[in-house]
Amino acid sequence: ALRLRVREALGARKPADAVRVQGWVRSVRSQKEVLFLHINDGSSLESLQVVADPSLEKRDLTFGSAVEVQGKLVKSPHKMQNMELQAETIRVVGPCDIWSFPLKMKERHPLEYVRQFPHLRCRNNTLGSLLRIRSEATASIHSFFQDNGYVHIHTPIITSNDCEGAGELFQIETSSEGKESAENTHFFNVPAFLTVSGQLHLEVMTGAFTHVFTFGPTFRAENSQSRRHLAEFYMVEAELSFTESLQDIIQVMEDLFKTVTSTVLSKCPRDVELFHKYIAPAQKSDITHKLFSSSCRISYSEAVEILKQAPQTFVFKPEWGCDLQTEHEKYLVKHCGEVPVFVINYPYDLKPFYMRDNEDGPQHTVAAVDLLVPGVGELCGGSLREERLPLLKSRLQRLGLTDAYQWYLDLRKFGSVPHGGFGMGFERYLQYILGVDNIKDVIPFPRFSHSCLL
Amino acid sequence: ALRLRVREALGARKPADAVRVQGWVRSVRSQKEVLFLHINDGSSLESLQVVADPSLEKRDLTFGSAVEVQGKLVKSPHKMQNMELQAETIRVVGPCDIWSFPLKMKERHPLEYVRQFPHLRCRNNTLGSLLRIRSEATASIHSFFQDNGYVHIHTPIITSNDCEGAGELFQIETSSEGKESAENTHFFNVPAFLTVSGQLHLEVMTGAFTHVFTFGPTFRAENSQSRRHLAEFYMVEAELSFTESLQDIIQVMEDLFKTVTSTVLSKCPRDVELFHKYIAPAQKSDITHKLFSSSCRISYSEAVEILKQAPQTFVFKPEWGCDLQTEHEKYLVKHCGEVPVFVINYPYDLKPFYMRDNEDGPQHTVAAVDLLVPGVGELCGGSLREERLPLLKSRLQRLGLTDAYQWYLDLRKFGSVPHGGFGMGFERYLQYILGVDNIKDVIPFPRFSHSCLL
Repeated sequence: ALRLRVREALGARKPADAVRVQGWVRSVRSQKEVLFLHINDGSSLESLQVVADPSLEKRDLTFGSAVEVQGKLVKSPHKMQNMELQAETIRVVGPCDIWSFPLKMKERHPLEYVRQFPHLRCRNNTLGSLLRIRSEATASIHSFFQDNGYVHIHTPIITSNDCEGAGELFQIETSSEGKESAENTHFFNVPAFLTVSGQLHLEVMTGAFTHVFTFGPTFRAENSQSRRHLAEFYMVEAELSFTESLQDIIQVMEDLFKTVTSTVLSKCPRDVELFHKYIAPAQKSDITHKLFSSSCRISYSEAVEILKQAPQTFVFKPEWGCDLQTEHEKYLVKHCGEVPVFVINYPYDLKPFYMRDNEDGPQHTVAAVDLLVPGVGELCGGSLREERLPLLKSRLQRLGLTDAYQWYLDLRKFGSVPHGGFGMGFERYLQYILGVDNIKDVIPFPRFSHSCLL
Repeated sequence: ALRLRVREALGARKPADAVRVQGWVRSVRSQKEVLFLHINDGSSLESLQVVADPSLEKRDLTFGSAVEVQGKLVKSPHKMQNMELQAETIRVVGPCDIWSFPLKMKERHPLEYVRQFPHLRCRNNTLGSLLRIRSEATASIHSFFQDNGYVHIHTPIITSNDCEGAGELFQIETSSEGKESAENTHFFNVPAFLTVSGQLHLEVMTGAFTHVFTFGPTFRAENSQSRRHLAEFYMVEAELSFTESLQDIIQVMEDLFKTVTSTVLSKCPRDVELFHKYIAPAQKSDITHKLFSSSCRISYSEAVEILKQAPQTFVFKPEWGCDLQTEHEKYLVKHCGEVPVFVINYPYDLKPFYMRDNEDGPQHTVAAVDLLVPGVGELCGGSLREERLPLLKSRLQRLGLTDAYQWYLDLRKFGSVPHGGFGMGFERYLQYILGVDNIKDVIPFPRFSHSCLL
């Protein structure tokens, strides 16, 4: 018998006599004259309806069990589905102990509930859809960059750079090492950390390639259990050389967002619909109508003026030179009409050493850009990088980092070019397009403070 | 002027009047009547020849400098290239301090030499080609699985599983944590480690999806500086459910290998040629003629017999029940005619708890498979997994691991299915197809004991 996946069976153009479908039972309904099953194998949100003679029912043919069904694929009499399977044999491959199985038939379990069972939650519809969407988005990100001539670089996970996010880093030791602490017991001879960004390593590559990207895990040891933070999360990062202005960077952010989102919407319509229907009913119009068809661009200085003139009081008083807080970001997005907002040109003293000096004043800024989106806040952050040796050198000197970043200064000595790039938080992206409130629900195995299950 | 990448300029069908090319100078040759430059921008191994009036020469137009050239793209009079650029203006965007630049014009630096300069070695032809090939192979791996209906899963990097590779794990602490060692100071509450494999997490997913894969970094704290080991390396791992035999796994290994290799050969012919010409002259025929057009399949028991009858003496005496050593693997590959060799059905006591019991005897084996290839040794390892609850339970009990793997046992309680999978070392794959001897030369930022540069 021809082995078909559920997705293939559902999409078949014509009936077939001898087919074989394998999967997990999502529902069993036993009537006097007929037995109905729904079989799912993860190839689509929709399950395949199986129609069988009641004599085929058996004790271990339950919700959650794994089965192999052989029979005839025929046109379904129901409007809602194309094909159904008339069973000739049903074999229970693996039974399911339904009394201890935490998922129940036809119940819409809350996301908080299934989060308790990281090893079983993929069998839940919502998580199934999420994982298919995540997979499509991942593939689409790779294709986007590939199609646009970017070279993919595996930037390292373990790094000896420790300066950027001081204090929020994870450090690495061999298991035996922990007890001693003398410098010379380090596996790598030097202290080593989990990366917080692949940017500096991508910058190495902009000395030989004009377009590079990376897409991998990054880490923050932030002691937070908020709905917006994970200790391990994924970042898409791109870096371009021979840039002319911040606009070059903003353009790639926009193109990436539009391409990936339209691919996901067209490849996983049902999966996306599930989220827009049950998880975030207001989200759909947001995606299809508002997204970057209108977006807003303001400078940091303008943003501060808008905040100062706001009719509401903020916990943190808006002031030129201070970081934008979540409450500020929310207000700016609302002020602009709940559309994505690019905020550009941040204060020099707020931003890391590598951002390009705008050499302006008296309000001294760097060529940075943050993209704020409704509901999520900061989705992307980017900048032009300081490619001019004297400016970079004096900045590193003032910070006492010249020795640690000798190699980074080197990049400016041998054919330095104007360049810049950005990073996009992949989980925040998924939260945004799907309207998922908690970041723990858009990653298969969430890691955060006090929690590392499995 | 129209901005063109070098690859686009070289491949242009017809001349163009006003074009602009940006890149780095790979050679400068100044003659009485004409100035020749070669410009490379990483889009291809080949550089674009620029022909200019000697009056355009200037002091800082040197090897390694970054330039922007405007002019006319014309048919080249030389047979070796299609188009060349007649310069009207040449702007040095970033000069290069050639006296301290460790790469020299037209010199074929040995790989060991450029390895000393991790921040500059991408400007070397060989590493440039490697990075383009690595990028194409990565894209092709994603496409292969995507095209075959696999769901991509980001398996976690940080994990609390610590049993498999005991002793060779990296442990994670927050920077501040190292000094104290009480259990309750752990960021995750429990000891946390860098993953050695995504397999167990992929197995979680085989309870809801029939085909899943992951492709990401994995870690071993092996105190080795050999040409075959890295502390951080990339693994492609796939897991399939409803398997019928080891053959299902072997088939995917073969298909993956053939698809990715033929994509790389057709998309990066010049880059691959560079390796086959200068790095491993014997490799080319290997790839195009021998690869899996013939491969060999033997059981572990047969392998031991072959080794016992070998006319040579081994340092480790071959004996049923003992691991195959590198010297044994080499001999087996040679014995089979320098083709890929699948070795199947290894001794039960040699392999990890999750491998499927063949329930044979007196020589008790599990359904495991290793793929050995000429020059590299083990390229892939896989197995069927023990899906039967009683067998898995008693094995974990004997190992004292029942508590730690309660969640893994759970997977066998709720619709368990026969399944299996494999992992392929991505760097070893690149070493194999390119003939690169040292694994440090096929990854952008190698990490190994005593070394974590940048």
